[in-house]
Parts: sequence; C-alpha cells; structure tokens
Amino acid sequence: MTKKLVLLRHGQSQWNLDNRFTGWVDVDITEQGRAEAQNAGKLMRDEGLMFDVAHTSVLKRAINTQHTALAEMDQLWIPVNKSWRLNERHYGALQGLDKSETTAKYGEAQVKVWRRSYDIPPPTMDENDGGHPRFDRRYSKLDATALPGTESLATTLDRVLPYWHDAIAPQLKAGQTVLVTAHGNSLRALYKYLNNIANDQIVELNIPTGIPLLFELHDNLSVKNFRYLGDPEAAKKAAEAVANQAKSAK
Amino acid sequence: MTKKLVLLRHGQSQWNLDNRFTGWVDVDITEQGRAEAQNAGKLMRDEGLMFDVAHTSVLKRAINTQHTALAEMDQLWIPVNKSWRLNERHYGALQGLDKSETTAKYGEAQVKVWRRSYDIPPPTMDENDGGHPRFDRRYSKLDATALPGTESLATTLDRVLPYWHDAIAPQLKAGQTVLVTAHGNSLRALYKYLNNIANDQIVELNIPTGIPLLFELHDNLSVKNFRYLGDPEAAKKAAEAVANQAKSAK
Repeated sequence: MTKKLVLLRHGQSQWNLDNRFTGWVDVDITEQGRAEAQNAGKLMRDEGLMFDVAHTSVLKRAINTQHTALAEMDQLWIPVNKSWRLNERHYGALQGLDKSETTAKYGEAQVKVWRRSYDIPPPTMDENDGGHPRFDRRYSKLDATALPGTESLATTLDRVLPYWHDAIAPQLKAGQTVLVTAHGNSLRALYKYLNNIANDQIVELNIPTGIPLLFELHDNLSVKNFRYLGDPEAAKKAAEAVANQAKSAK
Repeated sequence: MTKKLVLLRHGQSQWNLDNRFTGWVDVDITEQGRAEAQNAGKLMRDEGLMFDVAHTSVLKRAINTQHTALAEMDQLWIPVNKSWRLNERHYGALQGLDKSETTAKYGEAQVKVWRRSYDIPPPTMDENDGGHPRFDRRYSKLDATALPGTESLATTLDRVLPYWHDAIAPQLKAGQTVLVTAHGNSLRALYKYLNNIANDQIVELNIPTGIPLLFELHDNLSVKNFRYLGDPEAAKKAAEAVANQAKSAK
C-alpha cells in the first residue's frame, strides 16, 4: 500500500522578513506566516489527508505552523513529537546578523561560500555566547558534545537522518500517514535523502514556505512520486521568492 | 525535593456559553476562553514555572488552551502527550442538548440526579448514533469495549487514574514539573485522588476555568500543599461562576 509523507516548511518568520540569519534562534512566525500555515492546512484538508502522527522541530515557528495547519484540518488531536534533530541548520556566529552586517564583517565572497557550499560551515559560535544551545533549557538533556555551535548542510543532514530512521521511517512502514513540519535546511536534508540528490544540486533546491510537499512512497520507502499541493504555479513562485531571499541573505 | 504539578481546566468553550452538555463533543474555546488561557500562561510564567512535560485530552478546547498558555510562557517546545483518558466525562445521550431540552425530555428531578450523583450515569448514547466515539477516527485504535457511551464521575475516575499511574506519576517521581490541561470532571477525578475527597463531596467541587491549580507534592506524591495561582478572590469568583453555570446546566 502506498505510504504518505508530507513535508511542510514553516511560514514566514519575523527574521525571514528582516533578512537575518535565524538558525536555532527561536523566532515566531508573522501574521503572513500564520496565513500561509492556514492555507497549508486547507490544501492538506482538500487533499483528504488523514494524518496519524506529526513531527516538528523544537522551534516555535515550526510548532506554530503545524498547530495552525492541523487546526485548519481539525486534526489537532493527533500525536505530535518534537525533536531538536528537525531544527533549522545552526548558522554559527552568523545567527542574528543581517545581510549587510554579515557582508561588512566577513566580505561578500566568503558569505557566498557559506551560502552555496554543501559542507563548509560558518564560523562556530563562541561556546560562551549566551545564545549557544548549551545554555538553552530545551537542550539540557543532550550531551553538550552533541550540540552544534555551527553546521553545514552536510552536518545538518547527519543529525536529521537518525531521526528519519528511528522515528519517521518506522511509522511510515507501519502504514501511518506522517506530517513533518520543519525548516528550509532540515527539509532539504530529507528531500536529498529521499530523492537521492547530489551534494552540489541540493544547495540549489529551494523548498517554498507553507506549501505542503506530498511524497507517495513504496513499501520500502523508495519514492513513487512527489508533488506540491495546490496550484503548481503558486508553488513555483513561492520557491522563487525563497530563492531570491536566499540570494540577498538566507 | 518538592514535586510540582499544575492542573489547568480549559477556558470557556462555545457550548459552555450556550449551556449545552458537551462531554466528548469536540467544541473549540471562545475568544474569552483564549484570553483565559493567555492569562493562565501569564500566571504560570510569573510563578516561574518551568515545565518538563505536558498532558492534555484529545479535545481541542484543552489542546488549544494548553498551546495558548505554553506560548505565553515561551515553553511551546516541551513534549506534549495527548490522551483520551483525560477527556471530559462522556455525557451519554445528553450530549448536545441544552438545559431546557434536557428538562423537557427527562424531567427536572432526573436531571438533578445525573448532575449531583457520583455514580449514576446519564442514559447511554445509542451505539449507532453518529456521535458515538466508535465512529471517531481519534479513538479507532482503542477496542470498542473500552469506549464509553456514557459515564458517571465514578467511571470517569476509573479511566483517568490508569493514566495518572502510568504516565503522569512516574514523571513527577523522576523530578519533572508537569502540566495537565483537561476538563471539569477529569480534573475532579485527579483532585479527588490527590486530596482523598469523599464521593459525596467531590460532586460539590467546582474547578474554575483558566486558573492554574498548583500542587506541591512530597517524594511519594502525597500532597504537601495546593493553591490557585494569582488572586485568590479571582479564583473563588471563577469557581462560583462555574458552580452557577452547573446549577442551570452543566
């Protein structure tokens, strides 16, 4: 029987709007982000999706996007699991900086490398920086050595995949329909894994915010097909908007 | 070390407002209910409560109350477990009826018995009634024999307590601070158990909506003390408002 998995990127956050590197900073969605989440819920409802379980990161922009979408579908009662492994890529010392600050500090060429490369992480956040995850109560049960001070897309994938194998894949294999609400880079990691995308190609992929990406999978979880729900033009435009934003900052 | 447990009754729902028997019908909170939930979050934040985990029923009035309160505390990231065992008392064939309809159908004296007694349930909902829980996807993994078609406060307690012993108590014993967001009768059940209240007294207890009830417990989970957060007069008035509502319907 076909397995169903939906990947949903959180709606616009305040720092998306401000063009600042967000990473693990716990910024909320804007009113537009909430509207995107409602629309995502409508698209999934119109598709007739009946979720058995949902996953989200421990960041409120993903949690609130998921809650808003599930409310729209009248499926708030499904079990939700929150994991740091679905968090956005940690942007290291760039977190909190906007585009002009970053360029002023590191130079345009260097910023481009961090944005475009698969495995070169930005400078590590000082471990005494108050924003370091080791000071955040939500990560206090994790060994400090497991907590990143910066990440590339490659290392993001390394910490997302154990969650796929241990939490998500077994549910899909058991026939459950699964929703994963997360972030541009943690979802890129899953997309890369599922579609077997090359390193240099995945960095060019832009997953639009608030548009559910439905995968239909074979029994062994290989991909049968995948598509964005709703108007394909809308998905394309949303992806371009994200790409253009990524060109100015990320 | 003192263990901390907070019981929180959901804010005003649409059917509280309409004076209809709600039970397991999945009615949402009103704008006032949302404001109550925000206020509950503020009271818990001001108390300095740091939750490790939260529990709620599978009904959206409890789920949304908890989400709103946790958002106010900036603690949306904590694990949340949803269980049907925390649901409101099932009101059987009375679900959906308002006070005048119920009185017209069953007579005032009989309605009083159902409202005031500890162990006399209302008439059972017809098992072919479309509103019976056996037709609701959220209960589809439960054996039909476990699903009530009606409940007294006594049988509500019987299905709440296993969840206390299996899910909540072990977390408290492990030193976690726990939030339980639920309903008038499922919370009465926990209150009765914790404070060892007699059957004929618990039916007189009215837990106000939206006012966190903080229990401090000894290591063996016996009660050290308990109090409503915030202004004691506000809690008293809220309990009286609930009591007056209960006198007209429930």
